[in-house]
Amino acid sequence: MVPHLTTSLTGPLHDLERIVLDKRPEIERWFRAQWQEHQVPFYASCDLRNSGFKLAPVDTNLFPGGFNNLNPDFLPLCVHAAMSAVPRICPDARGFLIVPENHTRNLHYLQNVAVLKRIVEGAGYDVRIGSLIPDLEAPMDVQTSGGETLRLEPIERHGNRVGVAGFDPCAVLLNNDLSAGVPPVLVGIEQPVVPPVVAGWTTRRKSHHFHVYDRVAEDFAKLVAIDPWLINPYFSQCGKVNFAEKEGEDCLAANVEYVLGEVREKYAKYGIGEAPFAIVKADAGTYGMGIMTVKSPDDVRNLNRKTRNKMAVIKEGQPVHEVIIQEGVYTFESVDGAVAEPVVYMMDQFVVGGFYRVHTERGTDENLNSPGAHYAPLAFETDCHTPDCGGKPGDPPNRFYTYGVVARLAELAAAIEIEQLLASANEPRARAANE
Amino acid sequence: MVPHLTTSLTGPLHDLERIVLDKRPEIERWFRAQWQEHQVPFYASCDLRNSGFKLAPVDTNLFPGGFNNLNPDFLPLCVHAAMSAVPRICPDARGFLIVPENHTRNLHYLQNVAVLKRIVEGAGYDVRIGSLIPDLEAPMDVQTSGGETLRLEPIERHGNRVGVAGFDPCAVLLNNDLSAGVPPVLVGIEQPVVPPVVAGWTTRRKSHHFHVYDRVAEDFAKLVAIDPWLINPYFSQCGKVNFAEKEGEDCLAANVEYVLGEVREKYAKYGIGEAPFAIVKADAGTYGMGIMTVKSPDDVRNLNRKTRNKMAVIKEGQPVHEVIIQEGVYTFESVDGAVAEPVVYMMDQFVVGGFYRVHTERGTDENLNSPGAHYAPLAFETDCHTPDCGGKPGDPPNRFYTYGVVARLAELAAAIEIEQLLASANEPRARAANE
Repeated sequence: MVPHLTTSLTGPLHDLERIVLDKRPEIERWFRAQWQEHQVPFYASCDLRNSGFKLAPVDTNLFPGGFNNLNPDFLPLCVHAAMSAVPRICPDARGFLIVPENHTRNLHYLQNVAVLKRIVEGAGYDVRIGSLIPDLEAPMDVQTSGGETLRLEPIERHGNRVGVAGFDPCAVLLNNDLSAGVPPVLVGIEQPVVPPVVAGWTTRRKSHHFHVYDRVAEDFAKLVAIDPWLINPYFSQCGKVNFAEKEGEDCLAANVEYVLGEVREKYAKYGIGEAPFAIVKADAGTYGMGIMTVKSPDDVRNLNRKTRNKMAVIKEGQPVHEVIIQEGVYTFESVDGAVAEPVVYMMDQFVVGGFYRVHTERGTDENLNSPGAHYAPLAFETDCHTPDCGGKPGDPPNRFYTYGVVARLAELAAAIEIEQLLASANEPRARAANE
Repeated sequence: MVPHLTTSLTGPLHDLERIVLDKRPEIERWFRAQWQEHQVPFYASCDLRNSGFKLAPVDTNLFPGGFNNLNPDFLPLCVHAAMSAVPRICPDARGFLIVPENHTRNLHYLQNVAVLKRIVEGAGYDVRIGSLIPDLEAPMDVQTSGGETLRLEPIERHGNRVGVAGFDPCAVLLNNDLSAGVPPVLVGIEQPVVPPVVAGWTTRRKSHHFHVYDRVAEDFAKLVAIDPWLINPYFSQCGKVNFAEKEGEDCLAANVEYVLGEVREKYAKYGIGEAPFAIVKADAGTYGMGIMTVKSPDDVRNLNRKTRNKMAVIKEGQPVHEVIIQEGVYTFESVDGAVAEPVVYMMDQFVVGGFYRVHTERGTDENLNSPGAHYAPLAFETDCHTPDCGGKPGDPPNRFYTYGVVARLAELAAAIEIEQLLASANEPRARAANE
């Protein structure tokens, strides 16, 4: 069921991994202190890239949609994590409303919803699915890729509460990234919404996340005495880009040059022979849309029509105007000869699973989140929380612990990011003045 | 690695299981409320017997010694549970001292300690082993059955703190049931000891546990509207028995008669054709010593010398004077044709694993915790927290959920039992007056 994972990690431990494994008690203690200060997100997933010399998050998803890709063996971990998380949201309640994406034709996504439902049910809650599909007037049964039937029901609003027919949930679990905006039915409701609607792409920005991550990575790097760059990609941003109209190219080129220059210095310092590259992508949005790899500022000038079209709009047809330019991190991991990157799933403060995103037709310097990718679940013995440092001599150390640490750093950044989004949502005037 | 488990459970669901599966949200909500009122033990294991018509705990161990028998796949669940439990004990600390049994020749037990150490380390704590072995003057390395090396160190006491050389832990994790009494080195220390020393067999009594369990089972039975007997064995006790001197036989016979009579009535009510039986065992103590199966009051009269010797002393040579007479519950489960009973492991409020205790030379009405038993880990898909009620039609329901529920009822009884033990330890005068 679980494929043998051939990774660049089969050799001796890299310095970074060795340091992280050695400082485990300090690291876990530090995380515990962080989670006493910051409200941990209900769930999150993190795309990592591991180039051997560097292990960094490149994207943090607050509405993870790949629970179906986790090894089914991980399910009990998810259930326990949900048992930890949910009582904080509504201690005395029994009902949860999951609000998923509207993709009724993506059977894999629907399977993700089915698994998520099972996790929350496993924690002991009644779960119904409230759909945002426009004009949905009656419950609709859909089939998932796993052959299950899922019932999508129209969301009903009564005063300041939402639910579905005959079901008044204590909270709403969002599995919809709100790319199409915040639906009016969820505005001003009294039930808690997790993650909060401000975490949706209407208000969230990748550049904001990575600004916060800068500080988190710096603090962590101090704790374990490493160069923060080893876990943090450089980035920059452009606010007024219009790919369709060729506007903003100068900004893009200048920032690509800046990012590549910084990376070049680091590569020289560490004696890395590869060519630096950068990833240009929409500052809001997901699903691997609107993403390109560049190795020189010229690569963002005079784009052909096809590339411009590709970059101009993302999910739900949203036009791209804000762009993040992020240091590209090579992935030197592979599964069955194809390029792979690890995706780590978290619920509450726990790493609950992960998989490799694998693409047979992409290079080590390309975005893998694109059509044709497939998913290889991580085996259980590689669970990120159980390095077997104390095992028999000769046992391979569990290198995936380091993945879990870096992914949790990203989750912590997301927690602080959400705090700041909530704070600025509560200061509408100050915000308007800044705009 | 995990054997195919042939159990009596492959047929249709029994009524009790169906009810428990159907009422899952109510049950989990009830447990959540209970754990807000009662401090959940750090860990516990529960021996269950399943006769099809009845599923009941027969022994609850507060110092579980079989972590080595769990499916290794369960380890991450243990780590997460420890991550939940430990911060409550010492939020800001890094060091834990495990105090194990003194069995240096039981390599399986030592492997249990090694696994327990790895679990607490996995949760991010430094762990050292503080041994109570008398006259241990220097660290001693021992080999476990898994081929690991474990270092046992002499416990050092400085003022009101204990530790080992150069290590001042924030808490002591007891994995020693204190059958030989409370060691002076642990008396009056300022660090928390989990479970508290009053949970050791010096002060703990099985009859007390099952008295508390009576109330827990009654409350739970009301919640799910069942006869509490379906999850609760009758029991009685005798306080002044001396098997060596043939003292207390009348008390034993009378109580065997009482228990068998009660069981006979229930069997008649439910149309059960089997012969009622009872288990006579030491009220304090463990390791399956001092246990016998009886089917009539005559079975406890005129015991032969061999049986009397067997019953007279248990672990650490402690003489048996207090005895519990417990309704025997047939086990109709089998693994590879041999009689089996499930053992469920819990950490914090989580079911983290389990195994079947299997004995090829015992009957369905006998104690299986005896020399010659072996252990078959439960497969992961049977984790007690994830009934797949919402899965594909035709999926087998996860019957082990019910095991986890009954085991957690026993854990809850243990929690209340420990509260009462702590309260009476704090009232020494009242206690002396009662003695």
